[in-house]
Amino acid sequence: MKCMADLCVIPFNGNISVADEIAQCHRVLQRFNLDIQLHGYGTNLYGEWDEVFAAIKACHTELHDQGIVRISSTIKVGTRTDKDQTIQDKVDAVDRRLGE
Amino acid sequence: MKCMADLCVIPFNGNISVADEIAQCHRVLQRFNLDIQLHGYGTNLYGEWDEVFAAIKACHTELHDQGIVRISSTIKVGTRTDKDQTIQDKVDAVDRRLGE
Amino acid sequence: MKCMADLCVIPFNGNISVADEIAQCHRVLQRFNLDIQLHGYGTNLYGEWDEVFAAIKACHTELHDQGIVRISSTIKVGTRTDKDQTIQDKVDAVDRRLGE
Amino acid sequence: MKCMADLCVIPFNGNISVADEIAQCHRVLQRFNLDIQLHGYGTNLYGEWDEVFAAIKACHTELHDQGIVRISSTIKVGTRTDKDQTIQDKVDAVDRRLGE
Repeated sequence: MKCMADLCVIPFNGNISVADEIAQCHRVLQRFNLDIQLHGYGTNLYGEWDEVFAAIKACHTELHDQGIVRISSTIKVGTRTDKDQTIQDKVDAVDRRLGE
Repeated sequence: MKCMADLCVIPFNGNISVADEIAQCHRVLQRFNLDIQLHGYGTNLYGEWDEVFAAIKACHTELHDQGIVRISSTIKVGTRTDKDQTIQDKVDAVDRRLGE
Repeated sequence: MKCMADLCVIPFNGNISVADEIAQCHRVLQRFNLDIQLHGYGTNLYGEWDEVFAAIKACHTELHDQGIVRISSTIKVGTRTDKDQTIQDKVDAVDRRLGE
Repeated sequence: MKCMADLCVIPFNGNISVADEIAQCHRVLQRFNLDIQLHGYGTNLYGEWDEVFAAIKACHTELHDQGIVRISSTIKVGTRTDKDQTIQDKVDAVDRRLGE
């Protein structure tokens, strides 16, 4: 089962900027077989369900291993049985309508 | 790794009430080794990370098997390395402060 | 327009437990004309749209006023034009199906 | 108070593709004084808190006016008192670290 997901990880480490931790998660995500697209409030992920959630778990594990005691993530995940639709397909489908 | 999660599943099947689908997910979740607490906009889940996400995947699979073509879920997931904290512990920690 | 919402506020202040801040938000929410129900990963809110979002804004303002520099909240919000449905109505609708 | 938000609107109208409704929301959002950036699982919004939430309310109102009976949105919203940070600033802050 393929899925489209959106991941936003928040480390409870007292830093105001968490760009270091997001970059670290991005490096973790890149070790998996996923399409990845960073945006301003999270990261789109597209791939097999098990791969997506193994990647998200690896982000939590990596940050805990660095000493971060608590993490809270918000995830959206969508599945559909009618067709594969990549991250770019979804954006294009809306853009096409906006251009009409 | 234990985690606390919150799951809200939305089936794209055109029903205005989705209580049937939520009840069906609840029955699926109960097959897993999790603490489960339904609330007004989702369900709290507490247990091992892999068990929680196997349960969430099983909800998607179950609804697709029933013919629902598309599903979107919103999930929050929290992990911490300092202590175990159950669903009720978290509610009690806030209630205690409110009672002071 | 009435709405059902779910609010989860995360202060970036370096505390591992955020129960103090959640309790503070709860006190803020209680100043508004809303049904409020705390759960293990957030708070259900039910009332007029403008009241709900004034309350959520007041939570952010209150925590910033206390010196918290950054806050991230996850919100779900649902609206429907067919009927009013309270927090308890929604839980009951699922429980009824589970009891059948 | 400025905020960064992320909006994902789901209409309960039985359509498998909701690109029409997302495009319609996009047109509504463009009537407001906001930075807007569509991505694969939602839309980033940046601007004044009241403007952001007026825009989100207008999306719900617009879709209801078109006859959609029920809508559920997932929103993330972040505020910070230390500095303004645009959508692109946030992406650049992570990209810079990834490029190092």
